[in-house]
Amino acid sequence: MVASVGIVGASGYGGAELLRLLLGHPGLEVEVVAAHSQAGEPITGLFPNLPGNRVFDAVDLGRLAELDLVFLSTPHGPSLDLGAALHDAGVRTVDLSGAFRLSPADFATWYGEAHPRPDLVPAVYGLPEFNRKQVADATLVANPGCYVTTALLGLIPLAGLLEPGSVVVDGKSGTSGAGRAAKDSLHSTHVFGSVTAYGAPGHRHTGEIEAHLAGFGEDLGPISFTPHLMPIARGLLTTSYAGLRPGVTADQVQSALADTFADEPFVHVLAPGTFPVVKSVVGSNGCRLSAFVDERTNRVTVVSVTDNLGKGAAGQALQNANLMLGLDETTALTAIGMYP
Amino acid sequence: MVASVGIVGASGYGGAELLRLLLGHPGLEVEVVAAHSQAGEPITGLFPNLPGNRVFDAVDLGRLAELDLVFLSTPHGPSLDLGAALHDAGVRTVDLSGAFRLSPADFATWYGEAHPRPDLVPAVYGLPEFNRKQVADATLVANPGCYVTTALLGLIPLAGLLEPGSVVVDGKSGTSGAGRAAKDSLHSTHVFGSVTAYGAPGHRHTGEIEAHLAGFGEDLGPISFTPHLMPIARGLLTTSYAGLRPGVTADQVQSALADTFADEPFVHVLAPGTFPVVKSVVGSNGCRLSAFVDERTNRVTVVSVTDNLGKGAAGQALQNANLMLGLDETTALTAIGMYP
Amino acid sequence: MVASVGIVGASGYGGAELLRLLLGHPGLEVEVVAAHSQAGEPITGLFPNLPGNRVFDAVDLGRLAELDLVFLSTPHGPSLDLGAALHDAGVRTVDLSGAFRLSPADFATWYGEAHPRPDLVPAVYGLPEFNRKQVADATLVANPGCYVTTALLGLIPLAGLLEPGSVVVDGKSGTSGAGRAAKDSLHSTHVFGSVTAYGAPGHRHTGEIEAHLAGFGEDLGPISFTPHLMPIARGLLTTSYAGLRPGVTADQVQSALADTFADEPFVHVLAPGTFPVVKSVVGSNGCRLSAFVDERTNRVTVVSVTDNLGKGAAGQALQNANLMLGLDETTALTAIGMYP
Amino acid sequence: MVASVGIVGASGYGGAELLRLLLGHPGLEVEVVAAHSQAGEPITGLFPNLPGNRVFDAVDLGRLAELDLVFLSTPHGPSLDLGAALHDAGVRTVDLSGAFRLSPADFATWYGEAHPRPDLVPAVYGLPEFNRKQVADATLVANPGCYVTTALLGLIPLAGLLEPGSVVVDGKSGTSGAGRAAKDSLHSTHVFGSVTAYGAPGHRHTGEIEAHLAGFGEDLGPISFTPHLMPIARGLLTTSYAGLRPGVTADQVQSALADTFADEPFVHVLAPGTFPVVKSVVGSNGCRLSAFVDERTNRVTVVSVTDNLGKGAAGQALQNANLMLGLDETTALTAIGMYP
Repeated sequence: MVASVGIVGASGYGGAELLRLLLGHPGLEVEVVAAHSQAGEPITGLFPNLPGNRVFDAVDLGRLAELDLVFLSTPHGPSLDLGAALHDAGVRTVDLSGAFRLSPADFATWYGEAHPRPDLVPAVYGLPEFNRKQVADATLVANPGCYVTTALLGLIPLAGLLEPGSVVVDGKSGTSGAGRAAKDSLHSTHVFGSVTAYGAPGHRHTGEIEAHLAGFGEDLGPISFTPHLMPIARGLLTTSYAGLRPGVTADQVQSALADTFADEPFVHVLAPGTFPVVKSVVGSNGCRLSAFVDERTNRVTVVSVTDNLGKGAAGQALQNANLMLGLDETTALTAIGMYP
Repeated sequence: MVASVGIVGASGYGGAELLRLLLGHPGLEVEVVAAHSQAGEPITGLFPNLPGNRVFDAVDLGRLAELDLVFLSTPHGPSLDLGAALHDAGVRTVDLSGAFRLSPADFATWYGEAHPRPDLVPAVYGLPEFNRKQVADATLVANPGCYVTTALLGLIPLAGLLEPGSVVVDGKSGTSGAGRAAKDSLHSTHVFGSVTAYGAPGHRHTGEIEAHLAGFGEDLGPISFTPHLMPIARGLLTTSYAGLRPGVTADQVQSALADTFADEPFVHVLAPGTFPVVKSVVGSNGCRLSAFVDERTNRVTVVSVTDNLGKGAAGQALQNANLMLGLDETTALTAIGMYP
Repeated sequence: MVASVGIVGASGYGGAELLRLLLGHPGLEVEVVAAHSQAGEPITGLFPNLPGNRVFDAVDLGRLAELDLVFLSTPHGPSLDLGAALHDAGVRTVDLSGAFRLSPADFATWYGEAHPRPDLVPAVYGLPEFNRKQVADATLVANPGCYVTTALLGLIPLAGLLEPGSVVVDGKSGTSGAGRAAKDSLHSTHVFGSVTAYGAPGHRHTGEIEAHLAGFGEDLGPISFTPHLMPIARGLLTTSYAGLRPGVTADQVQSALADTFADEPFVHVLAPGTFPVVKSVVGSNGCRLSAFVDERTNRVTVVSVTDNLGKGAAGQALQNANLMLGLDETTALTAIGMYP
Repeated sequence: MVASVGIVGASGYGGAELLRLLLGHPGLEVEVVAAHSQAGEPITGLFPNLPGNRVFDAVDLGRLAELDLVFLSTPHGPSLDLGAALHDAGVRTVDLSGAFRLSPADFATWYGEAHPRPDLVPAVYGLPEFNRKQVADATLVANPGCYVTTALLGLIPLAGLLEPGSVVVDGKSGTSGAGRAAKDSLHSTHVFGSVTAYGAPGHRHTGEIEAHLAGFGEDLGPISFTPHLMPIARGLLTTSYAGLRPGVTADQVQSALADTFADEPFVHVLAPGTFPVVKSVVGSNGCRLSAFVDERTNRVTVVSVTDNLGKGAAGQALQNANLMLGLDETTALTAIGMYP
């Protein structure tokens, strides 16, 4: 009983990481590995870790519609079309782009365009720690953004303890989060030995954090989010700051986090004062986080790490797919990063 | 007319960077290069960029007292003793440690010990952009901390526009800021490909930012500060978030920064939307910063970069020394980083 | 039918990588995770990718002797004692150090000491691509050195085509190959942005390459080997140069490599002109290599990559252990590196 | 008496490094900063370390012909045209490309095209340690390649001691040596944590090493050269291996190197057993090298480091220009790298 799956957008980093994970999955057969512009080219030419003669497939909707599940690792433009078509054909789909994560109104605000299929959004948001039943039953799952996953895992459990309007999220990501396009700003010569901010204040993950913090926790109003580019290939850390509501104690903060994730296979809460290390989760679907309360400022700070291609993209997509296909949620996934 | 100077603590990174800068200085002769535990060892053994046969000197207070100026690049413990002794001997001194930066009360809070010479603190704080006359006249100058310099250059000009109690500073530093001691957490194998937070909420630079933001700008109350370790050797970026007072506009923010630094040789304000890049200042005494206002949150975000060993330590120390010795402030310094 | 295994020296990088691999092995139960100096300490304190409460065990020979197989990831000194004791107790053992890789005479030459148990050396050399039957039957297996594995996989198939006395091996390794000890030369601040040679001409892997090139291929006389430290955590590349015997063609070279590894799961030969990339094998037990012949010089150059902790240490150790325990050689191993 | 200079190709790394150096030169005024495709664009947009409003100039031969000296930092194609035109106009020129480094026959071999101006080649080769008088008198100087400079400084003094046909040069370079073009292979995400070989055996620097080793030392026949890409922005290390002629001793080797460079300001010979570190020369015009003799193989190994943009390109170009203009050869140059 092996299910058939396909990847569209496999020439990007998220798609290739999905392929790497799926090649080790005992219950899924990757029948389609499609890439619009690379069709016919050998996969190993782009991803030398994947040896062999397999080539990228063309994007063929008819072929995709015969599969048990499709992963869309395309930009939000192609995803809008493909996701809608697959939905209409009844094909279970996990979309890794921002195409289906927001309500029509929020989509218009953050993406600057009207959503072509307002009936489909927001799709079920693929954050299994908070809604695995809905994911299991969904046809179309919107896989969360990398910064968003990392920040929300630390903020949702605390939402009821935080002052509205006080949330600041400072994000630090490896360069793979910026995609494969050869840009001057991503040239190795410029990135080595350097760090910079980018994309603020209009980065689309801002609205996504706000929307799903409201959805899974409480509406805490607009947040400030500034992403930064780190000189590493993969890995992501968010440092979230928020004011505490009157009377909230450090024990309450720690309990809220520890209780939420006590039985979770991929999210581990560290003791206050122990800071998570990005490399501890690189290559995995794990998230590590810890929080500390500063009584001087009455603020809590939550530091959270993921692999932006793991729990921040492909790993979580597979976690969602496992749920949608009735498999053990952890199949072919690990919480153990490659360290050192 | 060449002045004589000495460095104590030259086996550390700050001291070695001072030596590198001073070797190119036409008006200063480095007569003493002292290091407690390395006395007699060749300098090039620790710093292979510095060829030749010179060895580290022993720390000899009598010898130091004959110099025109002494740089103390020692930890705050030895600096407390040496700085006081040199002050009492009337020797102009720039101390790069935290020994003389805070009032007795603040020192007790953040360093956990009573200051042994409350009559000397706070010493003149060596941030020449805001007090170059006081620096020029001082006997003992407390050279600011690296995170503090970087954050304050962006925050002081805006202090009157900001809401008290709203300031969050997120710092990202290269590993040289953590010193030369061989620790497991600084082992290259662990740091490559990784990022982590550390030291919060009690990092001593927190109190230093608060005290001198109050001193040069306005007292904005306690701030939240979280430092992070980046996988680079040198360079530092701070991202500072603060609420704006009612009615403050983006133009006011930009003007406050641009006007403050219009004639400064080392601090450059970029246009809003242009983010400074750490490597643009590495190897230099420069600082680049830019700010943007987010009307959704009514917050301003200031991003600022320095070289933690340059404007964050040795460069600024030399800038202060130039002023103290009546030299052109920019001698042997540059605002141009080594890029790429 | 799960076999019981133990690791001694688990606080080092090789031991920790073994533990990471073994935690994903369906047929092996890790009953002992011992570390001399860290006994009682939580494993996650040293290796934050390994969450949970497990602590390092003490080294207890009696306990080890009850296991089905023991991995020794200790320096050669402790390995000499432990390996001999386990051998005498009839316990199957894979030793990752240099303790049992050389004949008594070679050991004396390269390690500067008489081998205490000349009856045991050279033990079966754990390079399964060339002697998997011997490995399967062995009680004590000497796991090859990282540089040695990487170079030999490219040189052994060509040995009969090469001029004696002409072999030069230039090695480039990540810092994890130099071990966990906190040394100034491995401090991240020094290693970032830098490259250096070290250890030549007396590096012990020199003699190991010579001995086993003779053993599995032909005696080509003394070789020149210079290792270099790269600014990466893990991964290794060797560039081997050798003169060709008269009349040897490029086709012969390519065929010799391709034929040798045609059915190997972990070693892939690339087309001439395609250079292997270190990161394509990092995190895996894979090796990629390619060779080119330069008619101007009548030399062949072989470029080969492995993960120094994978095929260069823990991965190959597990490959050997799988063989020794009658399991599928590839269990819990992959040839697919984590890329990007 | 300030001389006027211009840079063509200033949008590349070599050109920008020249500009950085020239901005600190008291005797040269940079009147033209030209870049073909970037004319009119602000320099700081490409090189954020260079603040201010200056824009790239168009390439105007008439304007260049009025200058005292022109640096061509263009690819060899444009350099062939510009260098010839400037030569014919009698303008002193330092060309950083390969356009004028080889004889017509060698140029045809390694560049695959007939040289359009065989009367001009080989131009005076700008390796001042071996021909500073010729450089001082030259109109057109061919600035050596980065790998070539680094290797030749170690090999030329030893040429008479080495066996013909035995030389192997293994090169390791930072990514800036591969230029600014945004290629997939130079994308930071691919280069982080990785190392690879490239370009062998036909890399053009091979022929350049051979030709000038013959010219300044002895003809040692064809050499093997394999370049590698390191995960650093700048810096270069060559490891050169060669057989020793009968009877040559380690003392002779060390003396040949030490004597050659005893009075050189930029080249420092380290003691045998001390390996040079790339970062010790990054940002400088320095070269550090050391050699060791292995009696087992009767080979010498020379390890040499430079900054590929310093002594390997812009630094050496300025050193040549200083000579050509009658200035102190070391003006605006240093042998001290930025370390750490």
